Amino acid sequence: SRCTMGRAMGLAGLLLGLVVVPAVLVSTSLRHGAPRTEAEPEPSGWELAAADAVPEDSLWPLPQWVRMYSRQLQLAPSRFQLVHGAGSSAGPGCGLLQDAFRRYYEYMFGHSRRRTRGRRPLAARAEPELFQLQVVIEAGDPGCDRHPQLTSSEAYHLTVTEPVAILKAYEVWGALRGLETFSQLVHEDDYGSFLVNESEINDFPRFAHRGVLLDTSRHYLPLKSILTNLDAMAFNKFNVLHWHIVDDQSFPYQSIYFPALSDKGAYSSNLIYTPTDVRLVIEYARLRGIRVIPEFDTPGHTQSWGKGQKDLLTPCYNGGQPTGSFGPVNPVWNTTYDFMTKFFKEISSVFPDEFIHLGGDEVDFSCWKSNPEVKEFMKKQGFGTDYAKLESYYVQNILDIVSSYNKGQMVWQEVFDHKAQLKPDTVVQVWMANNYAHELSSVTGAGFTTVLSAPWYLDYISYGQDWKKYYSVEPLNFLGSEKQKKLVIGGEACLWGEFVDATNLTPRLWPRASAVGERLWSSSNVTNLQDAYKRLTNHRCRML
Amino acid sequence: SRCTMGRAMGLAGLLLGLVVVPAVLVSTSLRHGAPRTEAEPEPSGWELAAADAVPEDSLWPLPQWVRMYSRQLQLAPSRFQLVHGAGSSAGPGCGLLQDAFRRYYEYMFGHSRRRTRGRRPLAARAEPELFQLQVVIEAGDPGCDRHPQLTSSEAYHLTVTEPVAILKAYEVWGALRGLETFSQLVHEDDYGSFLVNESEINDFPRFAHRGVLLDTSRHYLPLKSILTNLDAMAFNKFNVLHWHIVDDQSFPYQSIYFPALSDKGAYSSNLIYTPTDVRLVIEYARLRGIRVIPEFDTPGHTQSWGKGQKDLLTPCYNGGQPTGSFGPVNPVWNTTYDFMTKFFKEISSVFPDEFIHLGGDEVDFSCWKSNPEVKEFMKKQGFGTDYAKLESYYVQNILDIVSSYNKGQMVWQEVFDHKAQLKPDTVVQVWMANNYAHELSSVTGAGFTTVLSAPWYLDYISYGQDWKKYYSVEPLNFLGSEKQKKLVIGGEACLWGEFVDATNLTPRLWPRASAVGERLWSSSNVTNLQDAYKRLTNHRCRML
Repeated sequence: SRCTMGRAMGLAGLLLGLVVVPAVLVSTSLRHGAPRTEAEPEPSGWELAAADAVPEDSLWPLPQWVRMYSRQLQLAPSRFQLVHGAGSSAGPGCGLLQDAFRRYYEYMFGHSRRRTRGRRPLAARAEPELFQLQVVIEAGDPGCDRHPQLTSSEAYHLTVTEPVAILKAYEVWGALRGLETFSQLVHEDDYGSFLVNESEINDFPRFAHRGVLLDTSRHYLPLKSILTNLDAMAFNKFNVLHWHIVDDQSFPYQSIYFPALSDKGAYSSNLIYTPTDVRLVIEYARLRGIRVIPEFDTPGHTQSWGKGQKDLLTPCYNGGQPTGSFGPVNPVWNTTYDFMTKFFKEISSVFPDEFIHLGGDEVDFSCWKSNPEVKEFMKKQGFGTDYAKLESYYVQNILDIVSSYNKGQMVWQEVFDHKAQLKPDTVVQVWMANNYAHELSSVTGAGFTTVLSAPWYLDYISYGQDWKKYYSVEPLNFLGSEKQKKLVIGGEACLWGEFVDATNLTPRLWPRASAVGERLWSSSNVTNLQDAYKRLTNHRCRML
Repeated sequence: SRCTMGRAMGLAGLLLGLVVVPAVLVSTSLRHGAPRTEAEPEPSGWELAAADAVPEDSLWPLPQWVRMYSRQLQLAPSRFQLVHGAGSSAGPGCGLLQDAFRRYYEYMFGHSRRRTRGRRPLAARAEPELFQLQVVIEAGDPGCDRHPQLTSSEAYHLTVTEPVAILKAYEVWGALRGLETFSQLVHEDDYGSFLVNESEINDFPRFAHRGVLLDTSRHYLPLKSILTNLDAMAFNKFNVLHWHIVDDQSFPYQSIYFPALSDKGAYSSNLIYTPTDVRLVIEYARLRGIRVIPEFDTPGHTQSWGKGQKDLLTPCYNGGQPTGSFGPVNPVWNTTYDFMTKFFKEISSVFPDEFIHLGGDEVDFSCWKSNPEVKEFMKKQGFGTDYAKLESYYVQNILDIVSSYNKGQMVWQEVFDHKAQLKPDTVVQVWMANNYAHELSSVTGAGFTTVLSAPWYLDYISYGQDWKKYYSVEPLNFLGSEKQKKLVIGGEACLWGEFVDATNLTPRLWPRASAVGERLWSSSNVTNLQDAYKRLTNHRCRML
């Protein structure tokens, strides 16, 4: 790809905070159908949070506070080092940072090493040299061997001055974000020299939960696709992989206690995720500061469960006779809860994240309504004909089971709407597009934390630059108190898998999801579409 | 990809014409969001043209006439040969066929050679062996060194019986289509054995012009993307690459006479197609029986031409003064026609196809209207204020120039609508979605041949299985005589490049364009969506 052209020129049009330079035309083959040269958008409409700098041409998502100087430093790939700085609680024993150092060195210089020969000597340039990026972790426990969590600190402070740059973060998670930002600052000029502007950046996420949902049930996704997506997530400072791992269509999760679930419920015997695969995903994500929240959606969306686990789903009836087909999980039998107790014990131990997503969406009541045993149970429980109460009864039991394993819970909004008794720390995910602002008001009004995904269903495609639509969403634009707004802990870009597999996942999700990434990371007043377009164009090139 | 599973099972559910076998469940990970097992659709709604056979599970596009027997033959990759048959006018000196033999051998067996070891011996199966596919070209001149053209014969007749299969075609172009079909008949069973059913196929295209439009101006497409697309086209029996090579946004065609056009008008100096690149595309296409029709669209869509060729575009005026911006090609200066004479002389010689596409769409008259010289010229010519007449005047001149080089012409529908005097053999391409049936009536009513692309703008994307929409188009569904219907020579799937580059071209175009491919090749009564879905699913796996 010729995106290196975009990369090389990414900073040519740099607008400086302290020194005014003339605006430069940006030329790139990636302007979607637009003329190839166009004037810089006026910076007048722009306000950078708590800073008098104007934004730089290539950072994505835009940091909270950026000051950039006109003075450029030069990096020599053969000499430049990413190292642990003085006073850091992390050292060479911190595998997570060592891995990140190697990775970001590759991102910055890797593509150029192959053509190093014949490059003119460094001395040909007048710029002073930047020799190191020193990374300093300030917390007593840097967190090298831990998993990221909702309350992890991702803040960092980066100063780039001669002769060394310093990246300070409280925990390793902030260092990962800062490394990404630093790598975005480094650019290659037309002659193959690597340059970085002296600068200072103070950065932290606006929202703590910034997720991408992948669905591996409608189509199986090979491990490689999932890992590639985790790379892309890190480039955009996402920190949650919401793994919608099973559904009606297939059950690719290979359970340790119940291997029949994937033996019978997967598309085929090798379209599965073995325990080793799952560990690999979790570790690959961890190294990038990404949590993996698995979703095991019940009681609906469970057709594939029924193949390997008899007597789990509700037999549907017609005219007093079983039809041979099955509905949602059977909520009336004790065996159901025995199974779920054991199953979620495994899940709680396999997935280290403190949260499990329990689903609970789109439960179709018609099969329950047809089943005499269920009807009898409804009567006994005094539910009348309100099957939402039965659903809540079921969900309640599952929530209690999962709570007993000390796991927090995420659920789709219906679980809240149908008035299940939720634990106070339950995260309610708002997904229904219709009047989601009202739902955010209700959920937060009831005191629950929430994650918004309704406006970010990226499996819905349309012609043209729909990223603008995703970008323009303001998650806190709903009626509610300051306290309610604080309960919005983040959002998720969802890529449901009905029409997605390994052949189209990457170009369908990226860079569209990048729009969501910036919305969830950057300051609320970072809304200028022209500026975003320019930065996103360069960011896309860099990702390619 | 696990599509080999789909491939292996593609023929398991074979419905036979002469022997009834029980319907078998088809399992594949590629059912988009549908349950993974589903019963075969009833064959009752189906009618196969001129045959009592029911369709086979994997052929795409469906041949005109298929008879398939239950008897299976076995192919041993180490022994099976594609050879020239007795009486063929083509022999080992026919590079085109030799290349095709090698290619189709690879498609059929190539992926399996790597795991040949440890396979049980052939004798373990009871089936008799098929030893050869003998290809017989019947025309005196087989056409090995020629280029395909509109009037080429693509018909073929294929019989698969023990011990040899015979593929007869009048010209090599038909042999290429038959080789594709034969390769689609060969399938691998669960044990790695290659099988083919005894069968007889008589096949020919419904329409002679079956095209895919690629746009290399809005985004540059690397050569590799274009070649990959030519492969996919051959898999779907497309035979025209409509190369929309330049446009407003960039001029990647490197001209021999006018190198400044790409020097100044391309996105960058290496985002171009050199004469060598162009020859490679043409030859790669030729070897697959695909014509390359270049489009050099004028007088509109030419902003990029103006960068490297001064005094070609019309200077726009405002308040009596030139604004510094430019409109369409200037139709009043002689220098314009001098340039075009020389330019199209080159194009006529570089591109061997008998047709050149001259564009002529979407001419914006506002700049012409502003220009005093143009207004003066309008007056002198007696055009009044009818700028469509000026457009026709210009197009007329270009048509005459190109005719003088013995090239046929394709134009977009506006050229016809604006009443230019067209040569009788001009092909009018109908692209406007609004009431295209009426346009087909008008164009054919005036006696012109036409190519339909209006319902097949594949750059317009939407959620879900839009291939059904493309598939369900009936090109001859317009008011007109039999004679008029015969003037519809085919259609094109158009992938405009505003939002397409190498990163998303393949998954965006395929297999959606396959729907158009079958519509243009197969009999008009091949319209059953359920059957098409089943075959297309298998075909997609095979393409992957």
